[in-house]
Amino acid sequence: MNREQALELVKAQITDKRYQHTLGVAESALALARKYGADPHKAELAAIFHDYAKFRPKEEMKQIIIDQEMPSDLLSFHSELWHAPVGAYLVQKETGVEDPEVLDAIKYHTSGRPGMGLLEKIIYLADYIEPGRNFPGVDEVRELAEKDLDAALLKAMKNTISFLLSKSSAVYPETFFAYNDMISR
Amino acid sequence: MNREQALELVKAQITDKRYQHTLGVAESALALARKYGADPHKAELAAIFHDYAKFRPKEEMKQIIIDQEMPSDLLSFHSELWHAPVGAYLVQKETGVEDPEVLDAIKYHTSGRPGMGLLEKIIYLADYIEPGRNFPGVDEVRELAEKDLDAALLKAMKNTISFLLSKSSAVYPETFFAYNDMISR
Repeated sequence: MNREQALELVKAQITDKRYQHTLGVAESALALARKYGADPHKAELAAIFHDYAKFRPKEEMKQIIIDQEMPSDLLSFHSELWHAPVGAYLVQKETGVEDPEVLDAIKYHTSGRPGMGLLEKIIYLADYIEPGRNFPGVDEVRELAEKDLDAALLKAMKNTISFLLSKSSAVYPETFFAYNDMISR
Repeated sequence: MNREQALELVKAQITDKRYQHTLGVAESALALARKYGADPHKAELAAIFHDYAKFRPKEEMKQIIIDQEMPSDLLSFHSELWHAPVGAYLVQKETGVEDPEVLDAIKYHTSGRPGMGLLEKIIYLADYIEPGRNFPGVDEVRELAEKDLDAALLKAMKNTISFLLSKSSAVYPETFFAYNDMISR
C-alpha cells in the first residue's frame, strides 16, 4: 500500500484535526526513520494508521478487547489507551496491512512496552514531537530526538508519567514497565 | 514489648543518625495514630523497628530474600528496597514481635503496596514527614497529614515516584501499583 492509499483510508476514519496531527506524525516518523535507520515506508505507514481507531465508539473497542482476548486490565484503565491495540487489530482486518512491525508500532504507540523495537520507538516519539504538538517539555524532547533516540524516548516517557501523576491519573502498568526497561539499558 | 525495650533493641542495630530518624518516625507515627484512630502502641512499635535491618550487609539481606522466598524481583531493583521486607522478617525472628499489622507496616514502609492498611499508611507517611526530614515538598505533605491521611499518602507517593523519575531510577512495581490503587479510591 502506498502513502496516498493509506492516507485515503485513514482520512475516512478520523476528524480533520486528527488528520492534520496524523500528517505531522508521518512527517516526524519519516525523519526519525531516515536518521536512525528504520524502513521509511514502514514508518510512514505505521504513522498514518496509528490513530485509525481513535474515533470508534467505546463499546465497539471494548467488545474487540474482549473478543480478541487483549489484556483485560485495559478495560480498567482509561479508554484513551484502547485505540492503540484496537487500532492495530482493525488496521490489519480492514486495510490488509499485515506487517507485524507496523502493527506493533500502532499497538504500542500510547502505552509503550518493555523491549520496544526501533519502529515502535519511532512512532511513539513521532506522536509526541510532531510539529503540531506544543505542550510543555516538547522542545526538549525534539532536541534530544536530533541526537539520541533512546534519550528522547525516555524523556517523553518520563514527561508522560509525570503528567499523569500531576493529574492523579492512573499509569498503565506497561507504561511503567517500559520506563523501567528504558532506564536499565 | 514496651517502648524502652524496643528502642534498646533497635539502637544496637543502627547508626546514631538513623536512631535519631527513628525517634522522629516514632513521634510522627504516634501523632498520626492518635489522629486517625490506629493503635498508638502498635504504631510506635512499627516505627521503632521500621529500619531495623537498614545496616545489615547486602549479602545477608539477599540471602534472606532468597531463603524466605520473598519476591525475587526485589533483587533486580535497588537494594534500598530490601531492608523493609528483610526487616519485617528479622524483627519477628530476633525480637519476638509477632503482630502481623506491625510486621506488615515494617515490610511495606518503603515500597508501599495496593490496599495498604491504616498502620501501613501511618508508618509510610511518618517515615516521610518525621521532623528530621527537610526535602522539597515535605511541608506540603505535613500539612495534608493534618487533615487527610490518604491525600498526604498519595502526595508522598507521587513525590517519591517523581523523584525517582528525575534521577532516572527504577520504580519498583509495587510502588506504582500502590499509587494506582490510591488514586482509584
